Amino acid sequence: MNWRIREQGFDKDRIAANGNKFMIGNGYMGYRGTMEEFTREELTATTLAGLYDRVDGKWREPVNAPNGLFTVAEYEGTPLGVLSSDAEVLEHEQELDIRQAVHRRVTVFGIPGRAEERRVTVNAERFASAERLNLLAAKISITSSADGELVIRTGIDGEVWDINGPHLEGLAGRQAEGSLLLSGTTQELKVPVAVAEAASYEFDAEAVIEDTATPGLMARELRVPCRAGETYTIYKYVAVFTGLDGAGDPGEAALRLSREAAVLGYEALLREHAAKWEEKWSRADVVIEGDEEAQLALRYSLYQLLIIAPEHSEKLSIPARGLSGQVYKGAVFWDTEMFMLPFFLYSQPEAARNLMMYRVHTLDGARRKAAEYGYEGAFYAWESQESGDDACTLFNVNDVFTGRPMRTYFRDKQVHISADVAYGIWQYYSFTGDGSLLLNGGAETVWECARFFYTYAYFNPGKQRYEILDVTGPDEYHERVNNNAFTNALVKRSLYVALEAMDFLRTNDPQQYEALVKGSAIQPEHIRDLHDRLYVPQPDAETKLIEQFDRYFALEDVPLPELKSRVLNKNEYWGGGNGLATTTQILKQADVVLMLHLFQNQYDRETKKANWEFYEPRTEHGSSLSSCIYALVAADIGSSEWAYPYFLRTATIDLTGDSKQYVGDLYIGGTHPAANGGAWMAAVLGFAGISFDGKTASIKPSMPQKWQAVELSLILRGQSFKVRVMPTGVAVEAGAGNGETVAFKIGTRDIQVAPGETARVDL
Amino acid sequence: MNWRIREQGFDKDRIAANGNKFMIGNGYMGYRGTMEEFTREELTATTLAGLYDRVDGKWREPVNAPNGLFTVAEYEGTPLGVLSSDAEVLEHEQELDIRQAVHRRVTVFGIPGRAEERRVTVNAERFASAERLNLLAAKISITSSADGELVIRTGIDGEVWDINGPHLEGLAGRQAEGSLLLSGTTQELKVPVAVAEAASYEFDAEAVIEDTATPGLMARELRVPCRAGETYTIYKYVAVFTGLDGAGDPGEAALRLSREAAVLGYEALLREHAAKWEEKWSRADVVIEGDEEAQLALRYSLYQLLIIAPEHSEKLSIPARGLSGQVYKGAVFWDTEMFMLPFFLYSQPEAARNLMMYRVHTLDGARRKAAEYGYEGAFYAWESQESGDDACTLFNVNDVFTGRPMRTYFRDKQVHISADVAYGIWQYYSFTGDGSLLLNGGAETVWECARFFYTYAYFNPGKQRYEILDVTGPDEYHERVNNNAFTNALVKRSLYVALEAMDFLRTNDPQQYEALVKGSAIQPEHIRDLHDRLYVPQPDAETKLIEQFDRYFALEDVPLPELKSRVLNKNEYWGGGNGLATTTQILKQADVVLMLHLFQNQYDRETKKANWEFYEPRTEHGSSLSSCIYALVAADIGSSEWAYPYFLRTATIDLTGDSKQYVGDLYIGGTHPAANGGAWMAAVLGFAGISFDGKTASIKPSMPQKWQAVELSLILRGQSFKVRVMPTGVAVEAGAGNGETVAFKIGTRDIQVAPGETARVDL
Repeated sequence: MNWRIREQGFDKDRIAANGNKFMIGNGYMGYRGTMEEFTREELTATTLAGLYDRVDGKWREPVNAPNGLFTVAEYEGTPLGVLSSDAEVLEHEQELDIRQAVHRRVTVFGIPGRAEERRVTVNAERFASAERLNLLAAKISITSSADGELVIRTGIDGEVWDINGPHLEGLAGRQAEGSLLLSGTTQELKVPVAVAEAASYEFDAEAVIEDTATPGLMARELRVPCRAGETYTIYKYVAVFTGLDGAGDPGEAALRLSREAAVLGYEALLREHAAKWEEKWSRADVVIEGDEEAQLALRYSLYQLLIIAPEHSEKLSIPARGLSGQVYKGAVFWDTEMFMLPFFLYSQPEAARNLMMYRVHTLDGARRKAAEYGYEGAFYAWESQESGDDACTLFNVNDVFTGRPMRTYFRDKQVHISADVAYGIWQYYSFTGDGSLLLNGGAETVWECARFFYTYAYFNPGKQRYEILDVTGPDEYHERVNNNAFTNALVKRSLYVALEAMDFLRTNDPQQYEALVKGSAIQPEHIRDLHDRLYVPQPDAETKLIEQFDRYFALEDVPLPELKSRVLNKNEYWGGGNGLATTTQILKQADVVLMLHLFQNQYDRETKKANWEFYEPRTEHGSSLSSCIYALVAADIGSSEWAYPYFLRTATIDLTGDSKQYVGDLYIGGTHPAANGGAWMAAVLGFAGISFDGKTASIKPSMPQKWQAVELSLILRGQSFKVRVMPTGVAVEAGAGNGETVAFKIGTRDIQVAPGETARVDL
Repeated sequence: MNWRIREQGFDKDRIAANGNKFMIGNGYMGYRGTMEEFTREELTATTLAGLYDRVDGKWREPVNAPNGLFTVAEYEGTPLGVLSSDAEVLEHEQELDIRQAVHRRVTVFGIPGRAEERRVTVNAERFASAERLNLLAAKISITSSADGELVIRTGIDGEVWDINGPHLEGLAGRQAEGSLLLSGTTQELKVPVAVAEAASYEFDAEAVIEDTATPGLMARELRVPCRAGETYTIYKYVAVFTGLDGAGDPGEAALRLSREAAVLGYEALLREHAAKWEEKWSRADVVIEGDEEAQLALRYSLYQLLIIAPEHSEKLSIPARGLSGQVYKGAVFWDTEMFMLPFFLYSQPEAARNLMMYRVHTLDGARRKAAEYGYEGAFYAWESQESGDDACTLFNVNDVFTGRPMRTYFRDKQVHISADVAYGIWQYYSFTGDGSLLLNGGAETVWECARFFYTYAYFNPGKQRYEILDVTGPDEYHERVNNNAFTNALVKRSLYVALEAMDFLRTNDPQQYEALVKGSAIQPEHIRDLHDRLYVPQPDAETKLIEQFDRYFALEDVPLPELKSRVLNKNEYWGGGNGLATTTQILKQADVVLMLHLFQNQYDRETKKANWEFYEPRTEHGSSLSSCIYALVAADIGSSEWAYPYFLRTATIDLTGDSKQYVGDLYIGGTHPAANGGAWMAAVLGFAGISFDGKTASIKPSMPQKWQAVELSLILRGQSFKVRVMPTGVAVEAGAGNGETVAFKIGTRDIQVAPGETARVDL
């Protein structure tokens, strides 16, 4: 069955890539796929969601907790580690069981120095509990082929990998009732962070707790006289708490949880964890029949989303690199609304709600940003952390030719972010019918975004229309353009959303409505006027092409390979002030084509095809967000053979590790949740052809030839469905417990699917 | 008397600089201050006004005519040239008599190879006739200290200095009635260019005309058995004609003029030339009493303006490098209206009229440019040649770090040029009261500029005002800014001008008025609305500072020396995409301060002083247009001691040759007519404190301490005045032939000066 990711053999050049590929997590924290014996040098990290810190004026980034899984062993004085120069790595396998979200490694070490062959096998397994989010659990077993002394040192390593750290000050260790505790506080906001570890084992050993040997290390040393063929197993129960958890003193909470976990025992914890994952998959899994490669890649993509989804908190969203480390400042971008939200909307609406509530909770930050630039309303952060203030700097790429920081306009000009947020909130409301989001700040949020656009927009007196000027669209290689088609279309949509949301509020919470409009110079009729007279670039009558922005067609039309031949430094940035692409038609990622996906019902096939064919050869795909959109629109126009390679590139991005690692001289490695979400979008919205407008679910498959069926669960307006999509027909099974009939349009047929009913439509 | 510019000794590193410094000209052509024996290698050039050519897709540039003054000599086989490695330069002097506009050189050569000392003295004199604009005349005398054979080769050298040449094809020579003729046609527009030369001498010589010896050279060789102490003199009469002159076949016209000139003879030609210059100076001279250095520098500046003023044609204006070569494409910039026009307005209104009529004649080019960018009306060329189409490229600086052309926004975003043109036209009308300019296209021009701005401007709905977005102001280091104070103020002024001009037209030529407004969606009331609600950044209530553009104050406030310390390559461009200054408050040249000068009556002294003090230390003066403005505003606020060094820097720019020679890796050397005009502005408008609003001439001196008096002539609304300005008082003498009384405000006193009257006011 297609649930396991495996790599055989050890390759030290893959350490960073495999740290991403084999990571585990549970939304509270991510734990990179490193070996037990690894330290900060190998980018070991326990990345905490939503906890940020700033040191010495460098940029803010997420905090990595001390590594409670740290374990090194020696056999007869020979260190057992894949990087050890003494032991020989005879066999090595790293595995991720994505069904249960368990990481395993097996390494067989050859011990030199004697005539007879001596082998020591290390087996380790770990998971980040889906049931107890503060808990990591591990099981480490060691077997040797000959008698000898085994020394195991295991505990909590406080020397963690940081980009701009160290973040924890006053790091101090202690022990209590057999558990170890290492805790400190963040430097900027003084948030305490504590990691406790309880270990259990059932063999005889001489144990010494050493808390001073290495600074920042709180560990115990076990000396085990081990016998040939016998297996020595240690269980580790690692609890991580911070001052943000609301669980009292983090140290005490961690100690308590580590002990409780030890009492429950590893196998019981694994069972409850696995049960939770079974439930997750029952809602999230997408079965592809006839394509094993696509199946595994897609499931792996979903796994990546599931381990970072903030199911437990509406104050968290998903950063652009998930919980795989500190890259991109652990910041939340538009990626969440545009590339991840759809998966959650269809399969886990509660998680989708949390993602959007995160925007409600960060509204004040967006207001501060708008005010900073002289606008009203809410200008959402391009890089959003816990407060919603923008973590994005004005100089976030270095010029490789001069070494100087380069002024870029990500922060100031990607105004579509506020429209993305409004779009996401309305998507949530449409999909779920859950007005509580609107009442609890959602309507206020979209209203504030609309007010922002009213002050950002300009009226062109000569052309008698509103325009959106001086923006950067998804194609970041072209900064500061006017009337970016994507941006204008999305802004127009967000204005519509604001008017609808305000109508909803007037009906359902008139008091809140009054409070919002009172005293504002900008009233709904102003937003209506802006909406009605806002210019959105339209397809040319003849060519059907939509110009990406004003005068884009006047740029140099250079073939991508020729532009590549002009590159002088492989890390040079193609955008910014003087970037190679800026004066050409080459784009970083889908821009017009993304608009054609988002507003697919507003454009005919001919328009979509013409634009796909025009923009595709001009797209560098310098962003991992690009390929899935080309896949989606290709599927939409019935060209699944064009779509398939783009789908596969997206779905395998974190498996192959073949993504851009640098922009200028900035490291940007890590996982790609947006691409993971994009893989789901391509498979489900693209190939299976599913869409939902809040009233009718439409299914219009456009599958790759070898796909025999796609099967998945959907939740639409709170109603559950199992859907099986085949080239020849579609079956929709409504949950027996559904409370409503939902309309489906399958191919060209309109049907109603009542609770408990199964509808089958041939195509 | 302060009328001579001299340099002693020969320094080959000064060849290029002295080519500018010692140039002669007459508005029809410029002739660089090179030696008679120099060729293209030493940048010898006869630059023709208003004739442009393009070769091989390189940029268009002015055409240099063949060099009719070419003369080399040998004495006893030893070449007599300052660069000759055989003859020794014992004495050398180069002189420019700016009163008569005559260039002279004397060189004494030592001839080696014999026991006795042998010296040969070459004396040469030349002028570009102010009476006969197609004529250059020269007198070359040679005297040796010992008998010997002198070989003189003199004629027309067709191998001319070009940046993007050669421009003349089919270059062919012939002789007719003793004159030599060399002619060819331009490559692009096939305009014939002909140079004829007649030579006369009164000594015996064996003469051979050789037209094939050197390609492109049409010359005669004279072998002169010369005797010690005797002087051998040759006179050269060089006529230059092109197909643009409307004088029939240029070759025939040139031959004819060369012969006529020979018949008249050198001394007679010089007399009529000198008489013409006496007349010029009688109107243009500014006498400074008490400061010899300033006197000479200012006169030299006026000389530079007088030799390039297009007195003879309303289809010519003055290029940014005058007629000193092909730099800056021989293009006309805003410099003319803003920095040169004032001198002509006060002293030669007919020349001022020509300058403005040039804009009328190039209106169609400006219309084409507006249409190219999707605007209506007239968007004047940033770099204007004969048709008014923009010669400015989108990539006019090379990046020194990558060698790549750099996208700059001179062409697209310096929209103030259209406002500058409108401002200039209105200045002419106000100064002269001559409505013919308005009736003959001037009103149409300013109306078209206003229509352009109406389509360029945007209305800000949040702030309920019009704004001018995405422009580059005079400070070109900050491209694409919003609401540049200078630009907005000047646009507002140009809208006022358009409304006034249209009123004038409605009264004086209703038919033309109707034709202009008929069928235009943009009517005067739209321009009125734009004018009334256009935002112009105002002084802060507390600090009195005017922000140069939106968010300028948010830029890095780095001291200029610190910014200089960041320079990695001395030729790196500070503006453009990633330039050093772009993210800082450092500016290239006066911007807000220029606005304070142009609209000096709208701002109080406190505001001018606060802004001068703020912007002055932040100004790099990367343009030769900068210093004079700081001088002007310093004088305006009564700080002539601040002003003086800026005045002197401006007035001496072409004397010292200490100006920027490169931008990126582009050579930009040549003369600086804008600075020449700026020197006049600083002295007359600044120190003498003269201004004229079309009704009242105001005189409010603010003189440097050592200046005892400034004396000059003025022509205001066609009336002549002689003005003497002293710290203690002012005398105004109205011409006896004046037809009107003109109002003066001297200090705080208002007086009327009737024809023939002299008014004296103590201060």
